[in-house]
Amino acid sequence: MSNQRTHLNYLAQCLDLAKAAVESGNHPFGALLVKDDRVVATSKNEVVVLHDVTAHAELRLIQKAQVELTAEELKDCTLYTSTEPCAMCSGAIYWAGISKVVYGCSTSQLFNIVKSGLFIKAEEVFFKGTRKIEVLDYSHEKKFIKIHENFWR
Amino acid sequence: MSNQRTHLNYLAQCLDLAKAAVESGNHPFGALLVKDDRVVATSKNEVVVLHDVTAHAELRLIQKAQVELTAEELKDCTLYTSTEPCAMCSGAIYWAGISKVVYGCSTSQLFNIVKSGLFIKAEEVFFKGTRKIEVLDYSHEKKFIKIHENFWR
Repeated sequence: MSNQRTHLNYLAQCLDLAKAAVESGNHPFGALLVKDDRVVATSKNEVVVLHDVTAHAELRLIQKAQVELTAEELKDCTLYTSTEPCAMCSGAIYWAGISKVVYGCSTSQLFNIVKSGLFIKAEEVFFKGTRKIEVLDYSHEKKFIKIHENFWR
Repeated sequence: MSNQRTHLNYLAQCLDLAKAAVESGNHPFGALLVKDDRVVATSKNEVVVLHDVTAHAELRLIQKAQVELTAEELKDCTLYTSTEPCAMCSGAIYWAGISKVVYGCSTSQLFNIVKSGLFIKAEEVFFKGTRKIEVLDYSHEKKFIKIHENFWR
């Protein structure tokens, strides 16, 4: 597959995880971690069922991945997420040493729907770090917004 | 006690928690949560022992406090921390609904010692939120830097 098709394929899997999150009573966010073209961990938002405001998909993903992977291995991972990471999750991604992030829905698209929260881009956080994190933005693909339009309105 | 003395008293307790973190093999950070002039939760950095890069004092504090307190009660809490919260912890503080943060050592003081990490102020994150978080900065009190000077150099 082309890079583009590979990215969209993994993002579609994140969207499925986001849908599964909603089905289990949580918020519509899903994420997964890829190393050497293999999914090494998946996660979904669990804020409601765990009664834990920090249980965002990306933070949970990192907490889970650390059990399986070394710090060295995490550096070679790409984190895919259905929606751009918030400041909390961007910070966690930075501390985990992950070097690449690919997202679907953007912070501004989400904010336009929810009208509250933290309106800060992941790259604004990453830019303040002393190591580089590559970011790919697929927010021009409109399918990642729909789940939020259905959920929050 | 005056407000100032109360704040410095709680920050001194955070420093003791930071020292305890170092004694148990972790990084020098401690935090606690106060409601109605009573400490309702304490926490320290557990990154090394838990093998979890997200186990910062403030994030752990919020995860613990949620078990005991309702979302309404969290709003009335003040979070004290030996060092200004990073982007990850600032995000967690925002999502937890906490309305006031008091810190000792500042991000820039820490950064000058460690020379790596995420150089973003907690207020830069809070400023992007749709609700206000009050921040009190006690970094002019030099005792909160010393623990970092001893640890990271």
